[in-house]
Amino acid sequence: MQTLLNDVDTHVDSFLDDLKTALRIPSISSDPAHQPDMTRMADLLSTKLHELGFDKVQTISTKGHPAVFGEWCEQPGKPTVLIYGHYDVQPVDPIEQWTAPPFEPEVRGDKLFARGAVDDKGQVYMHLAAVASWIKVNEKPPLNIKFIIEGEEEVGSEHFGDLVANNKELLAADYILISDTTMLKKGFPGITYGLRGLAYLQIDVRGSNSDLHSGSFGGVVANPINVLTKMLASLKDDKGRVTIPGFYDDAVEISAAEHDGLSKLPFDEIEFADAIGAPALTGEAGFTRLEQLWARPTLDINGIWGGFQGPGAKTVIPAEAHAKLSMRLVPNQDWQKITKQVLAHLIAITPESVEISITPMHGGRGYLAGIDSPAIQAAKAALAEGFGTEAVLTREGGSIPIVPMLAEVLNAEVLLVGFGLPDQNAHAPDENLDLENFHKGIRSLVILYQNLSELKPI
Amino acid sequence: MQTLLNDVDTHVDSFLDDLKTALRIPSISSDPAHQPDMTRMADLLSTKLHELGFDKVQTISTKGHPAVFGEWCEQPGKPTVLIYGHYDVQPVDPIEQWTAPPFEPEVRGDKLFARGAVDDKGQVYMHLAAVASWIKVNEKPPLNIKFIIEGEEEVGSEHFGDLVANNKELLAADYILISDTTMLKKGFPGITYGLRGLAYLQIDVRGSNSDLHSGSFGGVVANPINVLTKMLASLKDDKGRVTIPGFYDDAVEISAAEHDGLSKLPFDEIEFADAIGAPALTGEAGFTRLEQLWARPTLDINGIWGGFQGPGAKTVIPAEAHAKLSMRLVPNQDWQKITKQVLAHLIAITPESVEISITPMHGGRGYLAGIDSPAIQAAKAALAEGFGTEAVLTREGGSIPIVPMLAEVLNAEVLLVGFGLPDQNAHAPDENLDLENFHKGIRSLVILYQNLSELKPI
Repeated sequence: MQTLLNDVDTHVDSFLDDLKTALRIPSISSDPAHQPDMTRMADLLSTKLHELGFDKVQTISTKGHPAVFGEWCEQPGKPTVLIYGHYDVQPVDPIEQWTAPPFEPEVRGDKLFARGAVDDKGQVYMHLAAVASWIKVNEKPPLNIKFIIEGEEEVGSEHFGDLVANNKELLAADYILISDTTMLKKGFPGITYGLRGLAYLQIDVRGSNSDLHSGSFGGVVANPINVLTKMLASLKDDKGRVTIPGFYDDAVEISAAEHDGLSKLPFDEIEFADAIGAPALTGEAGFTRLEQLWARPTLDINGIWGGFQGPGAKTVIPAEAHAKLSMRLVPNQDWQKITKQVLAHLIAITPESVEISITPMHGGRGYLAGIDSPAIQAAKAALAEGFGTEAVLTREGGSIPIVPMLAEVLNAEVLLVGFGLPDQNAHAPDENLDLENFHKGIRSLVILYQNLSELKPI
Repeated sequence: MQTLLNDVDTHVDSFLDDLKTALRIPSISSDPAHQPDMTRMADLLSTKLHELGFDKVQTISTKGHPAVFGEWCEQPGKPTVLIYGHYDVQPVDPIEQWTAPPFEPEVRGDKLFARGAVDDKGQVYMHLAAVASWIKVNEKPPLNIKFIIEGEEEVGSEHFGDLVANNKELLAADYILISDTTMLKKGFPGITYGLRGLAYLQIDVRGSNSDLHSGSFGGVVANPINVLTKMLASLKDDKGRVTIPGFYDDAVEISAAEHDGLSKLPFDEIEFADAIGAPALTGEAGFTRLEQLWARPTLDINGIWGGFQGPGAKTVIPAEAHAKLSMRLVPNQDWQKITKQVLAHLIAITPESVEISITPMHGGRGYLAGIDSPAIQAAKAALAEGFGTEAVLTREGGSIPIVPMLAEVLNAEVLLVGFGLPDQNAHAPDENLDLENFHKGIRSLVILYQNLSELKPI
């Protein structure tokens, strides 16, 4: 292993040069003008996998942008790991806020600046580097490795579900390894073992056929905004708990072990609030901030509108009021069941003086890995060795729909081992990659492959 | 009196021709392009008052459009009545919805169609007609009459308060007679003895410095829309009562006599709801619909906005949320005191996790005449005789700020005797005047002047 790590140390600059080549291609998936760049980027990855000696290298087309596949499966009896990543990047606007051109990668201080530096080309190339060292030093990786690198993650992975369903044999694996998340903070390498799900609806309330004069009608006609605010306000009690019947029935509760683990993580409430300009934090009573953020369901009104919104005063009772409502869900909460519960509850509490229409718009399941799984322990040990510091177990409050989908369709365990940092401006101007994380991350991955190879195939 | 009424009957067509002349002038006060028409209209009224033989006829300039004044004060010892009206009209858009040009008055069936036909030129000309008959038959009116006809009612009477304050002597009167309201329905001539007041505020809630990802922050950060809906919803209880401390302290309650009077008025709940397309009516428990509409304060959210309002789903926790809030007040509720109470209450219930800003925007007092006053009885009798049917006492849910202002500044009693009908499209396309109301209204006014002349000056 020391020889392998020495090889990483020796070649880290050339790994970085490889990454820079990829970062020069503006593979913005949302912009049709960059279609040729998407093809160039997919070709670059195919070529790279070929050069490393991967088999079955292919560009799998979809109705959108293609994904790149390759495998090195020469370790019969050993587990197979599918490494998922994406080669597409976010748009660069507002371009004027970049301090250097986004597709001319440049090292300044201890960071590499470019769009895609951390999300996700940088992390894809860390895996390519770790694999390259294994091949150079030991002729092949210690276990069976497959890569699937898609081109539509930044536009919602719209066609990736079909691709996976249509290529189950090709993608079959014991573990799915994804490096596309962020570490808690610098110096805290970690594994993300839980993600929240999502249910999203639009609510439309109608009180009359047209706007009314609040003097001539106020007092006897239901005001759709008053009604909607009353309905929405009733969905959470004073302790921050959602009041929709059945909402918590299936939610996985936080175990004592997990509570202990999360309690040990650093979370500075004042620093967190200051960073976003919030006067104070708030949340569901009886839970720590990290639990509220990662392990408890939420209910947020994402948008609301109705009536007069211009300057000045207009004494109108509007005909309609509207809101967008979403819930972040925790594992085992089925978003479709939740959506039905919310719908039934909203209809039940709608007064007869208005009409309501509810449109389910969007949804996804949460994800929760067993924190005692051998793979997570293997990853924890690898990160501790690679970074020279203890690794932590974290969850994320957001949703990554492909994670539960991959786990289910391929019947495999997902490992989320990300090397981004919260302040590395993913999706924002001056996106950058921390070079120490890049180096220590590759070292960790080299060890992780070894650790996973020692597990039994699932 | 019969000679007088005969004169009205004989000349009603020529009175209508007089009105048509006025209706041909597009005196739209909100449109600077119609400035010359405003002058023409004021001149027409001055000429008319001169021709009738009024004294001190003058056009009183303001910072906006002028008002026209004239007086016939040759009845020492008799009361003085100040007749208020306005010669400006609303814009005509949407012009395509008119079935005939708005400034080419035309009789079709039993109605006269034109912008201003009922609001308020038609009603001003009813007074001019009634006075003309008095002068023709008896050489002068039976009491002292002053006219003040302003040109900015449709744009909020912005400069009228100053004009009244600066001309208190000139305008001094015992009674202020205003014909600019509507009857309950055809066949129900009446006096409007109460108007609601108004307090209007804007509320701005801020939770963070910029919009946040609902996955990364949902659960620990206050969502300004959630907070605002909760605050707004708490302002009314389940019985429709406003919960702001002190809100009802000064409100004049409905007396048993008034309750009885209002209960006798026709109000068809289903017809009312159908007309506006409302599934059902609703209101403060314990009161009849007319009481809720006219004699009880309300609280309406006139507008609300925040977060994502476009098509689709965006998982954002918005930085800000906003609402416009207004309350219709009943007599004795001081809008400035109410505004302070609302402000204090909103601040008191604002959680520490957000910042709030509240901007008072607008307000006005309500108005309530004593239903037993001799002037109201005089008007009731005049209407009954003029229309040949019993007159009713009604209130209105809207606000007319000049009414309490005139009553206070001139220390006089206001009489609201209006001849419009709810379906005569004031402010809308195809505004029209009911010719039977025009005729019977003039008869009623002729009698009303006589009845008022028999009262003692206040």
